[in-house]
Amino acid sequence: MSGAWRGRRVFVTGGAGFLGSALCHALGAAGAEVVALDSMLPGTGARRANLEGSGARLVEQDLRDADLLPLVEGIDLLFNLAGQTSHAGSQADPFTDLAINGHAQLRLIAALRQGAPAARVVHASTRQFYGRPQFLPVTEDHPVVPPDNNGVSKFAAEQYWLLENRVHGRPVAALRLTNCYGPRMRVMDARQTFLGIWVRRVLEGQPFEIWGGAQLRDFSYVEDVTAAFLAAAEALERVPERAAGHAFNLGGDMPISLQDLGDAMVAAAGEGAYVLKTFPAERAAIDIGSYHADDRSFREVTGWAPRVTLADGLRRTVDWFRPRLPAYLADEI
Amino acid sequence: MSGAWRGRRVFVTGGAGFLGSALCHALGAAGAEVVALDSMLPGTGARRANLEGSGARLVEQDLRDADLLPLVEGIDLLFNLAGQTSHAGSQADPFTDLAINGHAQLRLIAALRQGAPAARVVHASTRQFYGRPQFLPVTEDHPVVPPDNNGVSKFAAEQYWLLENRVHGRPVAALRLTNCYGPRMRVMDARQTFLGIWVRRVLEGQPFEIWGGAQLRDFSYVEDVTAAFLAAAEALERVPERAAGHAFNLGGDMPISLQDLGDAMVAAAGEGAYVLKTFPAERAAIDIGSYHADDRSFREVTGWAPRVTLADGLRRTVDWFRPRLPAYLADEI
Repeated sequence: MSGAWRGRRVFVTGGAGFLGSALCHALGAAGAEVVALDSMLPGTGARRANLEGSGARLVEQDLRDADLLPLVEGIDLLFNLAGQTSHAGSQADPFTDLAINGHAQLRLIAALRQGAPAARVVHASTRQFYGRPQFLPVTEDHPVVPPDNNGVSKFAAEQYWLLENRVHGRPVAALRLTNCYGPRMRVMDARQTFLGIWVRRVLEGQPFEIWGGAQLRDFSYVEDVTAAFLAAAEALERVPERAAGHAFNLGGDMPISLQDLGDAMVAAAGEGAYVLKTFPAERAAIDIGSYHADDRSFREVTGWAPRVTLADGLRRTVDWFRPRLPAYLADEI
Repeated sequence: MSGAWRGRRVFVTGGAGFLGSALCHALGAAGAEVVALDSMLPGTGARRANLEGSGARLVEQDLRDADLLPLVEGIDLLFNLAGQTSHAGSQADPFTDLAINGHAQLRLIAALRQGAPAARVVHASTRQFYGRPQFLPVTEDHPVVPPDNNGVSKFAAEQYWLLENRVHGRPVAALRLTNCYGPRMRVMDARQTFLGIWVRRVLEGQPFEIWGGAQLRDFSYVEDVTAAFLAAAEALERVPERAAGHAFNLGGDMPISLQDLGDAMVAAAGEGAYVLKTFPAERAAIDIGSYHADDRSFREVTGWAPRVTLADGLRRTVDWFRPRLPAYLADEI
């Protein structure tokens, strides 16, 4: 990382969550002044403990009703990781899903226009709205066919931010994330990612379930994701003509089948087992099949590449959680 | 039109507007029982007079807060034309734009699930979210690059409705409309379409303005649009495997440059003149260039084809408005 971060005023939404807190730690270590905003809603993975030692100031407020102007006034950068990301949650309550990913994003955009008209923005987007891939690897111009309400609202969020570039010239880039994993991820249940519950199960000595098994997925280790957010922000300053206004896929180490991933998880933990399950009919209809990202565009623009192999990342994840599992299974926040 | 409409219970949102009211007239003539919902908001083109003689019952309520269940209970069909369609309006107030095209649509979806679980739905979508065409003619798999907030919210609306098919199996089709024109269109200003103000100007004996002039556009005459909505509804019943879950482009007569359209307008009116203007720089940035739809998919599935030529449609439009212009320039509603 360049020395460009020293003294920079950075605002991180969703800052107490899995990826947001990792970013706060990295930014703090690089000398940035970091304010983290988080609604601390249960189920989002937000925990105060995630930010311990990061140096970030945590503001416990919700984007939907926070007084945002004082928080964003004069910032140099926004890393925008706040969002509703639960697929099941969006189907059960699409109104809240849209309020968080739509209305609240518009509030933040309006506040930034007023308080930080030149700030750069890196927005956390998702591969989720591609739906079932029509070709592999998936490029950024793959059709948008959201498989759930969350895919609709997250695409809207991304496009609102990219419009700030297209219409108003703000340096904005979006990263369409795939499955992310690592220390501080949510392991209580499968609400955010199935990998979380796998980590929990192996550490509890219980078999975890693999639905299907042949589907390919790619996985990004948290340190690589953090490096990608920083690289995107730096590219917005260094090569804005190549980075600004773009949504980039972010992949990871090589794609792998879920069954091979199960084997890798057991190997990483040195213990554990899994059970292969067949998709029930009603779930098969919404299964997206195989996915892996073509992220060459992001690599070319930023020079970023993942550094942590899947085997290493899984091992580091399991080792990190081993002494901390009870804390991460206790009541959230 | 088949006899299939007699006695059918049909709900038309945006029913007092330009296209909604035309649909109500056609449905009434075919023997359907029609309830039209309209917020009657200024600027939308809604007018009570639009429905005179249609036989439709007008309910003056807003999708954002109406008690929808009693209105949709037991309906056979929904034609969903309510929406915020002003590009400038969406930039000035993205919150209201999202409330109408996002939140209110989710309310209607929830009401239909409860009160009319099997009703067919034809949703009025738009070419607007394709943004500046990357190729011509534009097919349905053209990338979605909204040029404004309205494009973001209208894409979300369409996708929410298509999800009702993908996830819940409801027979839903969406029509991505291009420039529509004809009797009852809004002519007060250019808020909805530049063609409205052209009609007004020629009838007032004033020159109208053409910005640019070389851009190609396609135009759908209101009778053809109405026929397309009915054809989509019929296809959902007749060939659901080909129609349901799809968004179809709807084009019209041959594409034409705006300058040639200006000539056609003057010829249709038998009077008038236009002034060619150069785009100001800030507007050139958001001009979408040329657009015309590839609507072969819709034609193949439904057998629909436009019947009214542009020359004939313009003449009929101008003739219809000639005695009615003062009424359509008076305060709205």
